[in-house]
Amino acid sequence: MKVNFSKRSNFVKASEIRELLKLTELPEVISFAGGLPAPELFPVQEMVEACETVLTESGMIALQYGTTEGYKPLRELTVEMMKKNGIHAAFTDVLITSGSQQGLDLTGKAFLDEGDLVFCESPTYLAAINAFQAYMPKFVEIPMDEDGMVMEELERLLMSGMRPKFIYTVPDFQNPSGRTMSLERRKRLMELADAYDIIIVEDNPYGELCFEGEKLPAIKHFDKDGRVIYLSTFSKTFSPGLRLGWVSAKEEILQKYVLFKQGTDLHTNLFAQMVLVAFVRSHDFQAHIRKIRDVYERRRNLMLQTIQEEFPKDIKVTNPQGGLFLWVELPEGLNSRELLVKCLKNNVAFVPGGSFFANGGRENTMRLNYSNMQEERIVDGIRRMAIVLKEEMGGHGAIEAAVTL
Amino acid sequence: MKVNFSKRSNFVKASEIRELLKLTELPEVISFAGGLPAPELFPVQEMVEACETVLTESGMIALQYGTTEGYKPLRELTVEMMKKNGIHAAFTDVLITSGSQQGLDLTGKAFLDEGDLVFCESPTYLAAINAFQAYMPKFVEIPMDEDGMVMEELERLLMSGMRPKFIYTVPDFQNPSGRTMSLERRKRLMELADAYDIIIVEDNPYGELCFEGEKLPAIKHFDKDGRVIYLSTFSKTFSPGLRLGWVSAKEEILQKYVLFKQGTDLHTNLFAQMVLVAFVRSHDFQAHIRKIRDVYERRRNLMLQTIQEEFPKDIKVTNPQGGLFLWVELPEGLNSRELLVKCLKNNVAFVPGGSFFANGGRENTMRLNYSNMQEERIVDGIRRMAIVLKEEMGGHGAIEAAVTL
Repeated sequence: MKVNFSKRSNFVKASEIRELLKLTELPEVISFAGGLPAPELFPVQEMVEACETVLTESGMIALQYGTTEGYKPLRELTVEMMKKNGIHAAFTDVLITSGSQQGLDLTGKAFLDEGDLVFCESPTYLAAINAFQAYMPKFVEIPMDEDGMVMEELERLLMSGMRPKFIYTVPDFQNPSGRTMSLERRKRLMELADAYDIIIVEDNPYGELCFEGEKLPAIKHFDKDGRVIYLSTFSKTFSPGLRLGWVSAKEEILQKYVLFKQGTDLHTNLFAQMVLVAFVRSHDFQAHIRKIRDVYERRRNLMLQTIQEEFPKDIKVTNPQGGLFLWVELPEGLNSRELLVKCLKNNVAFVPGGSFFANGGRENTMRLNYSNMQEERIVDGIRRMAIVLKEEMGGHGAIEAAVTL
Repeated sequence: MKVNFSKRSNFVKASEIRELLKLTELPEVISFAGGLPAPELFPVQEMVEACETVLTESGMIALQYGTTEGYKPLRELTVEMMKKNGIHAAFTDVLITSGSQQGLDLTGKAFLDEGDLVFCESPTYLAAINAFQAYMPKFVEIPMDEDGMVMEELERLLMSGMRPKFIYTVPDFQNPSGRTMSLERRKRLMELADAYDIIIVEDNPYGELCFEGEKLPAIKHFDKDGRVIYLSTFSKTFSPGLRLGWVSAKEEILQKYVLFKQGTDLHTNLFAQMVLVAFVRSHDFQAHIRKIRDVYERRRNLMLQTIQEEFPKDIKVTNPQGGLFLWVELPEGLNSRELLVKCLKNNVAFVPGGSFFANGGRENTMRLNYSNMQEERIVDGIRRMAIVLKEEMGGHGAIEAAVTL
């Protein structure tokens, strides 16, 4: 028999890297590849109590069908979380999603027809590319520097007449680069979006995990017309396994998301929504987030320090002020996919950076995750990588590195 | 500002009926409108134990990201469930979904391009229409009788040259009609699908809730080529709030679903998957399902009996052998949307049947749910409906009814 899939099915392919990275599940492999939170910080015992509270007090509600929009007290909690980022929303402006990944899928569904343009950072979040890809847009990559998306490049494209359905950005501690968009650029992005009447999709999963520097207001803080669609998640502050995220947007837009979500999965797990609320009601959520932040900051410091001590000198690495990831640029000509194969032989893994470019390329980059690895394994893993890098870069004229070796 | 949604956004509209039915949440309204399980049968106390077991034994796994395919022991459980329906699958043939609603959405994503044909029963499951609608197919309705989809009609369309991307069917205790496809027709459907090389999407949320008669094998039981995609759910046997369903299909197809699910929500709530497995391991799941079945059977009996006693005589009603719903056909010319408005004034509600026809029409039908209502309220509610019906049908020549009145 012949199976006739939809046209969009040709755009989603199993990734060879994902297959390679399955090897990272072996216990002997030190993996900087995932984007996973540190599981030892999950509030397991507190969850036992929260589950019992919810089931005892309202089990018949928690296990029944819920509303598509989400559990009202959880929507109210997201309003509080957003307030800290300078966003003033009502709970009716919020849709609870099955992880913020679903917010990305619903964004594609609500906005993208085949051939539409999506502007995104270069590099950008891999799973956002995957989510949008299913709606067959064309991606236009906007270059970044240490202050995030370069506004002159964005303006140049807009002035040339290009009109995206939306601009997708992760302004805080971006995945994969760890970079943060500066305050000035946030304002400028808003001005350009206003001037050219463009929607912004602001994806902020990591904003709560700010180690240092001033916490910047969300882009949505500067939004007067309701053109910013704001996505966030509890995956990095509570638990990814529960799949709880949210979308906040003005009514006209949110209403479409709600209708599409109805057709997609009816509603998000209601028990999980209620358990999270029960946890927040009886514990200090901010203190819990600070605990996570402190651990990740220590791990970032250690990874960065070890890289500076061990890696050949002509390798560049970002210095993220929060979040989960470091971004590494190797000298031109090096291919991180090939490096990964060699690193796996040394029982250490990372994600080759090429996958984070919507239109491919830039194979001399890599993403390193520090949140999910105990301190001594961080040092060990970076040293293992350094050995491979030094071997490789011998032929790239890195005399200093060769000397170190 | 002007918001440019995708073309598909024009196909999803807020339903006026859904708005009307919001009124049914008032406590004084007896609602036969929802499709909700009886919450008093949820295993609340057992859930407390299951949550504690999962968290205590493997909290760091349960709260972490999981695999897209789903938790292996839960996939194995679905294999056991399917075996009872004559389906022989391995756990690798199963993808855990966020409710079977997500199985419908992924089906649309994987198969449908704009203008593609979907064959479905007439009437069919409303939320399947919604899910597929987002991919802009054309629906072709196949008439039903008491034995389900009429095969002569299906064959006539196939012989005329029409080729759907798939045939969507709910063969067991269909939502909304309560009808079951006969054994002979199941075999015939498979023969036709084989002969014309067509995919079948078999949606079976209610199969476990069989009150009487022989339990028929799934259509997939007769599937030699892997052309049947089988969807099911734990919403009716355990809890809808947890959003746990599954898809079983051959590898070539399932692989696409997995890739699309990755982009859609990464994976289904892992904690919920593990809690369900913990419940099943320490309790008699089949006994739990029997308990549900017995209660629903009693409620069906009572609703049917009260309808026969109270409704005007020229109203037709199905006699479902399982599931959650009765289907009512009023005399031609009566409009159940208008009746709903009048019934709501009498504090009783149902879903007008027109919404269950993919291309609209048939406004003289209605769906009644009996699973979610206590016995005395069933009698009371049907009597309230009968009053409205008798008033309406006075002008429709229902002398017998008028006399009863």
